[in-house]
Amino acid sequence: MRVTWQGRSLELKTVWMEGPTVRMVDQRHLPEELRVFVAESYRDVATAIREMVVRGAPAIGAAAAYGMAQAVLQGAEPEEAAEVLRATRPTGHDLFFAIEYMLREIGRGESAAKAAEAYAAMDEERCRRIGEHGERLVKEGSRILTHCNAGALACVDIGTVTAPLRLAHAKGRRFLVYVDETRPRLQGSRLTAWELAQEGIEHVVIADNAAGLLMQQGKVDFVLVGADRIAANGDFANKIGTYEKAVVAKENRVPFYVAAPTTTLDFSVRGGKQIPIETRAEEEVLSISGRRIAPEGTRALNPAFDITPARYVTAFITERGIVRPGDLGKLRPRGARSSAIRKRKPRKKRR
Amino acid sequence: MRVTWQGRSLELKTVWMEGPTVRMVDQRHLPEELRVFVAESYRDVATAIREMVVRGAPAIGAAAAYGMAQAVLQGAEPEEAAEVLRATRPTGHDLFFAIEYMLREIGRGESAAKAAEAYAAMDEERCRRIGEHGERLVKEGSRILTHCNAGALACVDIGTVTAPLRLAHAKGRRFLVYVDETRPRLQGSRLTAWELAQEGIEHVVIADNAAGLLMQQGKVDFVLVGADRIAANGDFANKIGTYEKAVVAKENRVPFYVAAPTTTLDFSVRGGKQIPIETRAEEEVLSISGRRIAPEGTRALNPAFDITPARYVTAFITERGIVRPGDLGKLRPRGARSSAIRKRKPRKKRR
Repeated sequence: MRVTWQGRSLELKTVWMEGPTVRMVDQRHLPEELRVFVAESYRDVATAIREMVVRGAPAIGAAAAYGMAQAVLQGAEPEEAAEVLRATRPTGHDLFFAIEYMLREIGRGESAAKAAEAYAAMDEERCRRIGEHGERLVKEGSRILTHCNAGALACVDIGTVTAPLRLAHAKGRRFLVYVDETRPRLQGSRLTAWELAQEGIEHVVIADNAAGLLMQQGKVDFVLVGADRIAANGDFANKIGTYEKAVVAKENRVPFYVAAPTTTLDFSVRGGKQIPIETRAEEEVLSISGRRIAPEGTRALNPAFDITPARYVTAFITERGIVRPGDLGKLRPRGARSSAIRKRKPRKKRR
Repeated sequence: MRVTWQGRSLELKTVWMEGPTVRMVDQRHLPEELRVFVAESYRDVATAIREMVVRGAPAIGAAAAYGMAQAVLQGAEPEEAAEVLRATRPTGHDLFFAIEYMLREIGRGESAAKAAEAYAAMDEERCRRIGEHGERLVKEGSRILTHCNAGALACVDIGTVTAPLRLAHAKGRRFLVYVDETRPRLQGSRLTAWELAQEGIEHVVIADNAAGLLMQQGKVDFVLVGADRIAANGDFANKIGTYEKAVVAKENRVPFYVAAPTTTLDFSVRGGKQIPIETRAEEEVLSISGRRIAPEGTRALNPAFDITPARYVTAFITERGIVRPGDLGKLRPRGARSSAIRKRKPRKKRR
């Protein structure tokens, strides 16, 4: 993505490798500051994923791929690095997909660095294709609601939700994006608004609570969100609050689209109930910018994701086309390899 | 309400009159600080309502009643004071109800100060009765979701939503309240959590986005919210986000109750579409505690209320009993006086 920072125009990726280091845009500081986090080892990459320096399922996948490459270059045991990286976050699927991909390539004797670069390049290519498939949904005058950030910052570049938006914008179409601020971590107001502002795409931030009113008032033509994991039946996990938007969209007959690469699809999981939901620190809800907003002694509950059943989804926009939930099986890899891999190593649930 | 502040136990009302001044708990500073705002004139009361020193439909009504009394005591023209106070906030009904009540009492030659005290006492009494009617819904082990603050701080004392909770708690029943933090102004985490903590009622704060997941998981036995204005057909206005909770509650067969005094009922308004929705400053969404959370240049849209259609409401808990939306007509005052009053003076929509 091209961004302007302190008067300079930069071509930026969300995560990349530079010599022996993995580098990533530190998303904890945007939009106030554009900082780069430098991971010296795969353990630093694991920390970066856990602490959300890098977030968004595809970006986490790419960071893990680079972390695996780093482990090999530094003489660490690939299985041990895989174990550490897998334990960072439980919900998004790309993390596990990328680690399996790297283990396979390393096992074949491929160059780990080249394999990671190829993974990152494939992620970009998938986003580009999502853009090509989804762009026709974004019409002149469209009003689109999005939740959280499924932008370039959630991938290596381009983004999933933002791919169709960027392409439609490049073609000169004008449209409006309602950006849910997305509490508790505010990825909407901090990250999505920043990306759209950088691109010059018209947008307006709303409290998450306001999305329902806008849909009821007929001001939203469609909802477009990302996904962290899609089950075989089309149920999917995404940032907390997505489920509410989906229910209200259906109630108001507003089409609801999910933009995600097939790396987010997990055929080993039959339905949404089997997707583990990460619970994060209470502090994310009880404080904002380090300032407490609730009484001392009050506790919080902070599930980071929710599950939206397939019946609320109009279609998935993937790099292989726009697919109805009932047709997801067509994207299943031949021989259901993904499923076989999953059984090799039971995933540990993060506490 | 009895609160402990800096080690001292205080008996507190949300708004009261002291000599020539109207005093109120300054709700912009809780839970960090318990400050009292002193209004020297009805114009100060108007400012306090507009700037949300005092908020919550019944509390605004009582503040306006006291402001009217203050105007008379200070020799101002009642109709002029009424005009200024009416222009403060457009959505809640109690404001208009209280002003009409005061104009009527003043017109009859009643003492304005006594009339305002009577109004405040009636508000407390209505809350007490709401508690008596609603208390039986709060069972041992109940898990209740609430949105915004419809507590003592939204009334003169006791609260509407909190009245049944306080009574059930006093009877020794144990239950859990999920408190929506309620962006953008965080009345849930700042005010409701504070009230419940003061009372020793078990509660946990959640991001507004998490309510849907909890309902889907079967962790909410019923939703209980307040109202700012209830139309004749049972549609009602309440804090932004209420509509989403109602839709998701219905989808998950979670009963949805609205606790409100009949002063919130507006029979001159047939349906929710006629209730004006206040739009507040963008800054409420774009900044938290004075710190900007969105990129410079990004705009926000900040509707303060939404409309929940009557079909999502299980019942209204009023001081006159628990009433299904279809039975609200039974609460209509004889001669439909409320409606006649409304036509006297067209309400100005706040810009």
